[in-house]
Amino acid sequence: MRYPTTIQNLIECFNHLPGIGEKTAERLALSTLNFDEETIQIFAKSLKDVKTKIQKCSRCNNLAEGDLCEICKDDSRDKKVLCVVENPKNIMLFEKLGTFRGYYHVIDGLISPLDGINPEDIHIPQLIERIKKEKIEEVILALKPSVEGETTSLYISKLLSKTNVLVSKIAHGVPLGADMDYVDSLTLELALENRKKISADE
Amino acid sequence: MRYPTTIQNLIECFNHLPGIGEKTAERLALSTLNFDEETIQIFAKSLKDVKTKIQKCSRCNNLAEGDLCEICKDDSRDKKVLCVVENPKNIMLFEKLGTFRGYYHVIDGLISPLDGINPEDIHIPQLIERIKKEKIEEVILALKPSVEGETTSLYISKLLSKTNVLVSKIAHGVPLGADMDYVDSLTLELALENRKKISADE
Repeated sequence: MRYPTTIQNLIECFNHLPGIGEKTAERLALSTLNFDEETIQIFAKSLKDVKTKIQKCSRCNNLAEGDLCEICKDDSRDKKVLCVVENPKNIMLFEKLGTFRGYYHVIDGLISPLDGINPEDIHIPQLIERIKKEKIEEVILALKPSVEGETTSLYISKLLSKTNVLVSKIAHGVPLGADMDYVDSLTLELALENRKKISADE
Repeated sequence: MRYPTTIQNLIECFNHLPGIGEKTAERLALSTLNFDEETIQIFAKSLKDVKTKIQKCSRCNNLAEGDLCEICKDDSRDKKVLCVVENPKNIMLFEKLGTFRGYYHVIDGLISPLDGINPEDIHIPQLIERIKKEKIEEVILALKPSVEGETTSLYISKLLSKTNVLVSKIAHGVPLGADMDYVDSLTLELALENRKKISADE
């Protein structure tokens, strides 16, 4: 005896989602029984809409409903600065801060030869082309501090080394509020290496 | 700047599900972008189907696709034994065991005067009627070992005390494999109270 087929199908759908196990899928599927008709309709429609309406921004690869994403459509931002991120989710992190006023470029992955991901498999050629075409003056690399992230940052900076573009990468170190006892040794090493001089007048 | 409206809508839908916070909802919604067309169609259809096709079994309140659930449709089970559970999910727990061959009755809640839930708000009158009508001989109460569960069990057993129906409730005690150090004192008290004599011949 299992659940009726309809419920069983829905459980399997939820089970497809990342990080949702069998038990959670069961709980989520059963909880939809208590949703009202309208919520269910919206839920089903949103699922289909996301698949049909959402595409990659033709300029920066961010998620977009039309040809360009909301950020690329915004003409008031600083056209000379470009922040390179791994995925669209990372853009949201910066946008929540609200302090960065340049544009973004999503490269959709990181170089990882072991996984067979080479520079041409992610949007690095497109990035370089855009930098030249749009006459970008500053590129900020905001990639994950992992082997793959560092490799990708290094690769991009080498490609741009012969140009006049200023390339920087976001700082890695001890996060604010962290308990020193729990900071891993690699982070601590980086934090020590990138120490900053304190001037008395500040 | 937020996600495109379509994605924002889907995030809100996932956020509606129990135990799914904002961050998880965001992760789940974005993950559906990688689903293929067919999976999305099935997901959306299942959601709507569950709402339209699933109803309560007219006999036992289990989830059913027609008038009767799969268990009530099965004529080969023991018609004299009825197991009383709180919700349809609990039926699945017993069915996974595969050893219980009687029928079930879902009461859809537990008596809780503090929350304004009285015996007539859950399916207790319907349960008593069914027991009489179907000439049930044994009732097994499999409700949660909480104040509400115990109250409900006691209430049902009192209602049946003047009949010839044999009423029992599932045993509460130390679960198998549990570390004695971590068993709470109430469970231990119950386990001590319900101790079982060991006969040497067994």
